[in-house]
Amino acid sequence: MFKIAVLPGDGIGPEVIEEGLKVLYAIEDKYKLKFDVKKYPFGGEAIDKYGVPYPEETKNACLSSDAVLLGAVGGPKWDNLEGDKRPEAGLLALRKSLGVYANLRPAVLYSPLKVASPLKNELLQEGLDILVVRELTGGIYFGPRGTVAIDYGFKAYDTEVYQTSEIERIAVIAFEVALKRKKKVTSVDKANILDSSRLWRKTVEEISKRYPDVELNHMYVDNCAMQLIKNPSQFDVILTSNMFGDILSDEASQLTGSIGMLPSASLREDKVGLYEPIHGSAPDIAGTKKANPLATILSVAMMLEYSFDLIDAANDIKDAVNKVLEAGYRTFDLGKGIILNTQEMGDKVVEYV
Amino acid sequence: MFKIAVLPGDGIGPEVIEEGLKVLYAIEDKYKLKFDVKKYPFGGEAIDKYGVPYPEETKNACLSSDAVLLGAVGGPKWDNLEGDKRPEAGLLALRKSLGVYANLRPAVLYSPLKVASPLKNELLQEGLDILVVRELTGGIYFGPRGTVAIDYGFKAYDTEVYQTSEIERIAVIAFEVALKRKKKVTSVDKANILDSSRLWRKTVEEISKRYPDVELNHMYVDNCAMQLIKNPSQFDVILTSNMFGDILSDEASQLTGSIGMLPSASLREDKVGLYEPIHGSAPDIAGTKKANPLATILSVAMMLEYSFDLIDAANDIKDAVNKVLEAGYRTFDLGKGIILNTQEMGDKVVEYV
Ligand SMILES: CC(C)[C@H](C(=O)O)[C@@H](O)C(=O)O
Ligand SMILES: CC(C)[C@H](C(=O)O)[C@@H](O)C(=O)O
Repeated sequence: MFKIAVLPGDGIGPEVIEEGLKVLYAIEDKYKLKFDVKKYPFGGEAIDKYGVPYPEETKNACLSSDAVLLGAVGGPKWDNLEGDKRPEAGLLALRKSLGVYANLRPAVLYSPLKVASPLKNELLQEGLDILVVRELTGGIYFGPRGTVAIDYGFKAYDTEVYQTSEIERIAVIAFEVALKRKKKVTSVDKANILDSSRLWRKTVEEISKRYPDVELNHMYVDNCAMQLIKNPSQFDVILTSNMFGDILSDEASQLTGSIGMLPSASLREDKVGLYEPIHGSAPDIAGTKKANPLATILSVAMMLEYSFDLIDAANDIKDAVNKVLEAGYRTFDLGKGIILNTQEMGDKVVEYV
Repeated sequence: MFKIAVLPGDGIGPEVIEEGLKVLYAIEDKYKLKFDVKKYPFGGEAIDKYGVPYPEETKNACLSSDAVLLGAVGGPKWDNLEGDKRPEAGLLALRKSLGVYANLRPAVLYSPLKVASPLKNELLQEGLDILVVRELTGGIYFGPRGTVAIDYGFKAYDTEVYQTSEIERIAVIAFEVALKRKKKVTSVDKANILDSSRLWRKTVEEISKRYPDVELNHMYVDNCAMQLIKNPSQFDVILTSNMFGDILSDEASQLTGSIGMLPSASLREDKVGLYEPIHGSAPDIAGTKKANPLATILSVAMMLEYSFDLIDAANDIKDAVNKVLEAGYRTFDLGKGIILNTQEMGDKVVEYV
């Protein structure tokens, strides 16, 4: 029996998680499975209850689970707290404690949603199917940092730091997933300026020798930010650091115009993974039933696929989402169609599953 | 008599510089001015001649000039050199030695070129006129760095570091230019993660108190990468660090679809400045007469405006470029129209000046 720790979090988090679980339970019924599902406080909710974003109890539960399903964290209420007491600090601690160093962020354009893309149609002829593989437990997010008083004011610093082994393992993930896709890896760095990027590039180059069937090219991060807009279909897998991946995956996802559709998985060597929609907690629409639960529902599909090897069940969910869209059903963020609220969209997917 | 050090550089650099100077000489004639213009080796060209990208002679000339006009540097020929011997190292040393900490990068959509933008027309109704104010002599580009051997492989690091005074002076520039524009500054950071970003945000907040007429908002860099695509007309001035500015200014410029049109200025407190097109050296089209010289010509206009206070002359150039475009003249990169080569485009602008 697979054990799943569920962290609904803040804002629309609990609302979309509800729908994700609805679909998970539908899969249980269909395949006569039983998942051990329990919810734990995390993020702002946990700060309010326990003063910390990632309480011991939640941590213990996550560390002994096969998968963690997360809604979203953060909101204006907690924005003025000290750095290490904020919801975001909990997110970093969660990622680090699980050791899920490989963040997979697909940016896929669903053809019924093509009209939602901000890009001109000419640029989307070949569709858009990019997978950003972002290093998630290293780099400037976790390097030495500090703020010190100086003669005039302060000096503050953060350190981007990578070692060979960290780069090797994330590169392996990128090449492995590329084998199952269009066999192309674009490694993004700033090797014309950064020492850490030069080590990144050299190490990726080494790993690529083990994958003669995968084409590798290198691109500077500034150029990549341009190329994503200029010619997005040139990309298959984008392999990059924590910081650059944060920026580029958000840019790539915006190109689809429907960020409410995009799931993500964060993995390590074994099958344990953290699954979450890439959208945020959207406090402005929390409670209005406008949230799009599809990114969370698709995160559940990724969990079934990557952590539980339940490929058929995962495909059922993906097919159901496709059919729901093709039938013209939409949430508020997706533009014209038969508009459903959060719960109705969850129900509709269950119906098609 | 204003002294101008001209650094043609590599690839298409010398070709576009030639046209920029042509227009400068036309201004000399028109306004009975005399500029002291001399060319110096820089970048790959200097590496080939002297083994270093920024030779003493060039440095002395730049430091004693009123303005520096740069073409572009770099190319595959020099890509495999050690970090500090590369053309890019020369560019960093040039910026640092001049102390030009404020890099102004306008991303403007010329209405005759609207069709070249990758964005759907709906998103461009209000046009696109963003000015990225990028900190240019600090941050991770210049912080402590290194690569050390460890038990397994290497560890490499770079340091993002900012102090109050550096942030204050660049913020002042952003607020000052905003006063002459739509009076809106969006300061971009990653304050939910980085210590340096929290100091950045606090300091910008302080400076903003001196500018009650300018609206300030803060945005995380990942969100900004999305918002630029989702709703570019929300931006007026974007104020950000060296690294984030590198990425975001390239993204913003790509939204115009005509990066061959975009100039830049790098300034310090006095009037001395460094002017360059934002495009690169484009080695693939060097020598083919396909390069678009308009970004360099507009960089000359920025030089006249910011370093020499020759506002009328600067406007003459900008008007001439607008008229040339309106008359249907284009270079190869700009799409359909009466296609001119590099020299012909320079001549055409001179004609309209
Ligand atoms: C909330 C924030 C700390 C986080 C990050 O930067 O990693 C988010 O932007 C993301 O991409 O998951
Ligand atoms: C060539 C490179 C060092 C440079 C930078 O990163 O600053 C370039 O990308 C730029 O933006 O001017």
